[in-house]
Amino acid sequence: MERGTPGASRPAEPGPCLSNLRGAEPAASASRLSADRAQPGNPTIAVAAVLPAGGCGERMGVPTPKQFCPILERPLISYTLQALERVYWIKDIVVAVTRENMGTMRNVIQKYQHKRISLVEAGETRHRSIFNGLKALAKDQPDSQLSKPEVVIIHDAVRPFVEEDVLLKVVIAAKEHGAAGAIRPLVSTVISASADGCLEHSLERARHRASEMPQAFLFDVIYEAYRQCSDYDLEFGTECLHLALKYSHMKAKLVEGSPDLWKVTYKRDLYAAESIIKERISHEICVLMNPKDDIEPIDHLLKALKNELNDVKIESGALSQVGRDIQQSKLEKCYNFVCMNIMTSDFQETRNLLSTLEESSLSILYPVVVVSVHFFDFELVPLSQKMESLVWVRDTAKEMKKRNILLHGLIIEYSQGEKFQESLRQGAIIIAALIKERSSGLVGQLLVA
Amino acid sequence: MERGTPGASRPAEPGPCLSNLRGAEPAASASRLSADRAQPGNPTIAVAAVLPAGGCGERMGVPTPKQFCPILERPLISYTLQALERVYWIKDIVVAVTRENMGTMRNVIQKYQHKRISLVEAGETRHRSIFNGLKALAKDQPDSQLSKPEVVIIHDAVRPFVEEDVLLKVVIAAKEHGAAGAIRPLVSTVISASADGCLEHSLERARHRASEMPQAFLFDVIYEAYRQCSDYDLEFGTECLHLALKYSHMKAKLVEGSPDLWKVTYKRDLYAAESIIKERISHEICVLMNPKDDIEPIDHLLKALKNELNDVKIESGALSQVGRDIQQSKLEKCYNFVCMNIMTSDFQETRNLLSTLEESSLSILYPVVVVSVHFFDFELVPLSQKMESLVWVRDTAKEMKKRNILLHGLIIEYSQGEKFQESLRQGAIIIAALIKERSSGLVGQLLVA
Repeated sequence: MERGTPGASRPAEPGPCLSNLRGAEPAASASRLSADRAQPGNPTIAVAAVLPAGGCGERMGVPTPKQFCPILERPLISYTLQALERVYWIKDIVVAVTRENMGTMRNVIQKYQHKRISLVEAGETRHRSIFNGLKALAKDQPDSQLSKPEVVIIHDAVRPFVEEDVLLKVVIAAKEHGAAGAIRPLVSTVISASADGCLEHSLERARHRASEMPQAFLFDVIYEAYRQCSDYDLEFGTECLHLALKYSHMKAKLVEGSPDLWKVTYKRDLYAAESIIKERISHEICVLMNPKDDIEPIDHLLKALKNELNDVKIESGALSQVGRDIQQSKLEKCYNFVCMNIMTSDFQETRNLLSTLEESSLSILYPVVVVSVHFFDFELVPLSQKMESLVWVRDTAKEMKKRNILLHGLIIEYSQGEKFQESLRQGAIIIAALIKERSSGLVGQLLVA
Repeated sequence: MERGTPGASRPAEPGPCLSNLRGAEPAASASRLSADRAQPGNPTIAVAAVLPAGGCGERMGVPTPKQFCPILERPLISYTLQALERVYWIKDIVVAVTRENMGTMRNVIQKYQHKRISLVEAGETRHRSIFNGLKALAKDQPDSQLSKPEVVIIHDAVRPFVEEDVLLKVVIAAKEHGAAGAIRPLVSTVISASADGCLEHSLERARHRASEMPQAFLFDVIYEAYRQCSDYDLEFGTECLHLALKYSHMKAKLVEGSPDLWKVTYKRDLYAAESIIKERISHEICVLMNPKDDIEPIDHLLKALKNELNDVKIESGALSQVGRDIQQSKLEKCYNFVCMNIMTSDFQETRNLLSTLEESSLSILYPVVVVSVHFFDFELVPLSQKMESLVWVRDTAKEMKKRNILLHGLIIEYSQGEKFQESLRQGAIIIAALIKERSSGLVGQLLVA
């Protein structure tokens, strides 16, 4: 078993955070996890998580095990680790991977700066992998630096969208009942088949549920169940809740989960996951300007952007005016930047932003889109100057792409009347497309609205 | 009940057609549907399909019923109708829609030129909608122009990827057994809950299956079952196979389906469907050139494209050389065109292609991508000429977008040595991105490789 080193500080996750959740949860629930809510780092229940990730992904129809399939060039399992490690009260995350994927997994932890992760070797089945993870937490292994938790969460490496609220609910239910698991309504009717391949019995849909992940257990309950269970269970069993019932006689509490808990199983699920992630990081745009510039055209573009992207939060301000701390906090929430340049092509605002982005760790987890907008009056500015802009955008974009920053240039024709309005509208459509598609193949272009 | 008029001829569907299937199927299966295989329009079993489409899509979390949610700007149900109507031996397709969606549905049928469709009013539940569809086929309704089929397929409006082979399998099994339905392995373990919300029982996953669609029945079997069944069944039942068993004592044959049969239920399923459709229409690129042009740079770009898109079929030829029929057949398979223009900006090849596309019905069903490629030596061609190109591409793209044709311009720097190679590689990356993303927001640009 090996223990990862804590990484450098990393940007926050888009999506609900604990403070939001606590507003929605009954105070009693939250206080069970943390004796003093003013000290969120001091929970009264010691919680760890085990993530079996030894699967080979045969249903996906691709050679890469599905937990290592890339989404926006980052392996799926990294999104799941991110979802768990942002929950501060999960002290340790033990991942079980096969021997041949140990190196890949180490690289993922290092590249994406995951924290509180320990690796154990996967067993030949899912249950054996979980058991190995539990053993590491039980200090059965001589070199383990982990401590035994009171409650252990078991989750899947291929359910990247797990939210803190459902993790909290299963942990609290496990503390009370010994075992708990997330469930979802069935999408299809479930039937049993006779030996000759005919319908034997059709289950009443309302009386049954799909058992999903996460699940949580009092550590001693699930560990004892695994120690006692048969080789048959370890080989062919699928359901941890069932083992807890069978060997520890604990009736698991069932907790309703959200649709987000679904398991990435088929190739279409990877497509869906990519679209969900793209959507999540497109919810906010930061529009930056030089305070010395004329505010009028910028206001017009902001209006056009709000019109085109009515479900997106648009913040605007001057990068150079705000202090380092504020910059940092702004950068940590937002993966989309529009930099305004009026009648100039010296790119000063864009240059400043790019160097701030390079110094931050924002683009480690997600590709960051930067659109450098230039207002030009085609009658005043010679064509050759625009071509210079193209060369700068192209060369800079090439460098930035290596750092996961997608730079695009956009020229808006700064004229009068209807023509200007149409150019603004087109510009907003183009910015929306660049942010939503996040296509790395189209960086470095100088688009014309 | 109302009957749609047959539409004009329409492009073929990407994906397997009956001739492919027949190669793979045992001859016995195919010959049961068609007494004379040389006359594929003359099946011996009369088959119709009923599509309940009265749902309100509450699980999707969007106001539009999910069957009308747009994918690449076309409603989901249109893809499902397309999947059924390309199967020539399905004589009639009866769709049950709510009164308030009747107008929307009529527009869909007209706009996308669907054929063999009849509309009936949906009931308050899924079973009542199916029953209404069956009544229309049973000639119970005075104004019906439909004839009673021997076998009826029941399918969901929100399973757009149904393939002919599974339709054939359920029809043949229904002919033999009276009833048949597609099944899939369970993705999650299914459990039953006790009254206090705890785990009661965990079903053995290997012994159960998810019942999916399509299903098929001898018409008299399912019609009799519906006529006999109770109000409770019509209100709360979910499973047609179960009704056939309960009232007609027919044990349904279960047929293994492919993962493609999944039901679009949540928003993520819409995302997945869009990605699948985009992928399916990106499998082939047609590269067109003027035979008088220098073949050398074109060959280079073809090589770069093949390198970049190694899973894509790339065909090349001269549009003006081939006759109308061949053009038509080429156009019907392919939704992606790259037009080559060497050292000129008169766009003749691109103009010819666009007018051919406009005359065809290719872009009715899917957005067609056209990339107009221009090889320029930046040292020989004045900048102003390139700007003229931009204006033409932009103005033409605007017109073409109305017809669902996405026009892009691409300049490749026609120089010597490594610089040219790099430009070709970049050009291939850009073409790949334009085809894969199919973003209508980025049309009309003159991109530079």
